Amino acid sequence: MADETSHAAWVERDAAVVWHGFTQMATYADNRPVVVERAEGRELIDVEGRRYLDAISSLWVTTLGHRVPELDDAVRAQLDRVAHSTLLGNGNVAAIELAEALAGRVPVDDPRFLFASDGAAAVEQALKIAFQSWTNRGVAGRTTYLAFGGAYHGDTIGSLSVGDGGFGTTVFDPLRFACVRTPGLDEPGAVDAAVALIAERADELAAVVVEPLVQGAAGIRVHPPEALAAVAAACREHDVLLIADEVATGFGRTGTLFACEQAGVRPDLMCLGKGITGGYLPLAATVAAGPVHRSFLGPDLSELTLYHGHSYSGNALACAVATRHLELFDEWGVLANVGARAEQLRSRLAADVAPLAPVAAIRQQGVMVGIELDPPADGLRWGRRVSAACVERGVLIRPLGDVVVVMPPLTTTGDEIDRIVDVVAASIADACR
Amino acid sequence: MADETSHAAWVERDAAVVWHGFTQMATYADNRPVVVERAEGRELIDVEGRRYLDAISSLWVTTLGHRVPELDDAVRAQLDRVAHSTLLGNGNVAAIELAEALAGRVPVDDPRFLFASDGAAAVEQALKIAFQSWTNRGVAGRTTYLAFGGAYHGDTIGSLSVGDGGFGTTVFDPLRFACVRTPGLDEPGAVDAAVALIAERADELAAVVVEPLVQGAAGIRVHPPEALAAVAAACREHDVLLIADEVATGFGRTGTLFACEQAGVRPDLMCLGKGITGGYLPLAATVAAGPVHRSFLGPDLSELTLYHGHSYSGNALACAVATRHLELFDEWGVLANVGARAEQLRSRLAADVAPLAPVAAIRQQGVMVGIELDPPADGLRWGRRVSAACVERGVLIRPLGDVVVVMPPLTTTGDEIDRIVDVVAASIADACR
Repeated sequence: MADETSHAAWVERDAAVVWHGFTQMATYADNRPVVVERAEGRELIDVEGRRYLDAISSLWVTTLGHRVPELDDAVRAQLDRVAHSTLLGNGNVAAIELAEALAGRVPVDDPRFLFASDGAAAVEQALKIAFQSWTNRGVAGRTTYLAFGGAYHGDTIGSLSVGDGGFGTTVFDPLRFACVRTPGLDEPGAVDAAVALIAERADELAAVVVEPLVQGAAGIRVHPPEALAAVAAACREHDVLLIADEVATGFGRTGTLFACEQAGVRPDLMCLGKGITGGYLPLAATVAAGPVHRSFLGPDLSELTLYHGHSYSGNALACAVATRHLELFDEWGVLANVGARAEQLRSRLAADVAPLAPVAAIRQQGVMVGIELDPPADGLRWGRRVSAACVERGVLIRPLGDVVVVMPPLTTTGDEIDRIVDVVAASIADACR
Repeated sequence: MADETSHAAWVERDAAVVWHGFTQMATYADNRPVVVERAEGRELIDVEGRRYLDAISSLWVTTLGHRVPELDDAVRAQLDRVAHSTLLGNGNVAAIELAEALAGRVPVDDPRFLFASDGAAAVEQALKIAFQSWTNRGVAGRTTYLAFGGAYHGDTIGSLSVGDGGFGTTVFDPLRFACVRTPGLDEPGAVDAAVALIAERADELAAVVVEPLVQGAAGIRVHPPEALAAVAAACREHDVLLIADEVATGFGRTGTLFACEQAGVRPDLMCLGKGITGGYLPLAATVAAGPVHRSFLGPDLSELTLYHGHSYSGNALACAVATRHLELFDEWGVLANVGARAEQLRSRLAADVAPLAPVAAIRQQGVMVGIELDPPADGLRWGRRVSAACVERGVLIRPLGDVVVVMPPLTTTGDEIDRIVDVVAASIADACR
């Protein structure tokens, strides 16, 4: 065994006790894992002091970077008050202040915030709220959901049920509830098909569940705002609730604070996670519009109540950092940088990556980018190999199959964008053979 | 509207934007909510400076108290390294160190740790791992679970499915998958019934799911270690996996670090949450025994892989505080205090609460106590009224229906136990009429 402080030793220790999600542990060590010890700005630093530009925002959560002094201070200040107190039947100041701050920003009418910690739990909450709201209003038969081809909403059984099937999901079919499935909104004719299905099956639908503008896990599949707007209009017309899952798209990724804004859509329920704390701490929230919330009001201890709640709901440390994060968004003009960097990415990728022979397509919305490779045969593992080559060059990338995902923090500089594109282009040229 | 810094004003602000779990929001303000601003030791302090002894451990999560300097320091030190980096395909030092520390303590053979943030997600992970492990080993038909009457495992659809039915759950029946249900282990004949069902239906069972020693949410229903041991032995004999949900019982609550230890049971899968961070930060973990984990090993990108992972899995801040918390457990001799306080609680409750006319039964395991009231008619809301009376007296209590739950932090002093019992006894005498 190598020196016990070496990277190899840490990887061995890691694989001996940690089970990494979405990771084949038998080959974990072979896929060039980075073992992070610390960070500075947008760079992660491994146990041997190597630096990696975090071009995946630590799996799509980091917005302003790591070790942000203002966010660190927010955590420290809250530690001097209280780390956590329960939200079941009681309140805490940090959660109230965050909910008030978010209320002014989310595209949801008269919003109420039900907090959780995992994004999948925010989806589960939205599904349950939509479902029970019909029961509470005395409407029977609204027992299923319309969801899209390619959808991903998380890995718990409820969120997995509204997600599309396929690899890693089908094995759990006996546990998943059935949904009405319609093609992803980026496919030809998909908007008309979705609108027609909503009209036809409205009486059965508790809600339509959509990832607005971008289906992230599907490989950064992008649809235009008009498609989203048409689905939302059909929901409104036929009295079906609309759940917008903005766990991945929320907090600036798509160019606006929330993706729904670009389509002028105001969903009945919205799911938030990932970027909500700037990538610092686990926090998720289900946002319910006033009319939905009101269907749960009634006598104390009655069946109208939502009997759902997670222990760490409204955790004060997480709420405090989320509130400060929202302030910094404005103070720093983060969205202006997202706009500039998105344009830079678009032109640089068009010039230097799109022409490469292994590249089949490039899809982008804001600073969410998927570069689809087109391997001539199965089993070539191009996605894996390109990502490993990027990591070798000091840029952390993790693929979705043969789609190379580029998802830099929102504060990324022009120089860093150039570096990412240069490294990705060189890695594709090297590794796809 | 009252002075905007008043308690009443904060409650109004709270109810205008926050949706509290397991809480009827129409009557939220009437049920004497505490709005917490800060804390000291085992006392929560509200927005008007009133102090409340936290006799519910902020919903069963707080172990050592609030504002523990050593835990605060652990968060601060980790902030100076990194708050979060992804565990998908990559590692971080804080998660490895926590997994190594836990590996030496959990009653699971050759354990591996899959982290999440909500306890319900840890249950979902255990259910999915058990399910897929049979598929991976080429065994068909293992598509359901044996679970107990009175069980509660969380509120996401999968965890809700293995939980028992009834109030707040049945409405979601069309979304829940079916389980084999057997009476709770505190009922007469339940052990024999469970053992017989495991033998009879082993070929259908992916796993048996149990809350070891205490069914918390059911009203602190307690069964003896021998009952748990008999179920575990039946699982072993008939080759059914055993999932121990220690989200509520883990980290000292029952008198040992984990409840399974008292029965000499080593489960195949274990779910951890709540106390894992001392009540500071959201963190949960599914612990898988080596043989279970090995059934997922295979070629890279193969279907043997567990395609499940939460964005904040292995969050470094939460892991750092959890590691320090585990050290303090030993340094402070926490379990010795739990033993002494549990005995004190038992004798004081027997002397001063059990004889009260409104009390039907007292159930206790370690520092988990349920005082079951026996109202002579429906709708008297005795549980609610006793809890409100306790809060008036400066002791924070939250009931489960007409069961008054006492769940003090593990470091509670003898004087504080006396104060809690005095207040509960006086509140029952006052409020149950």
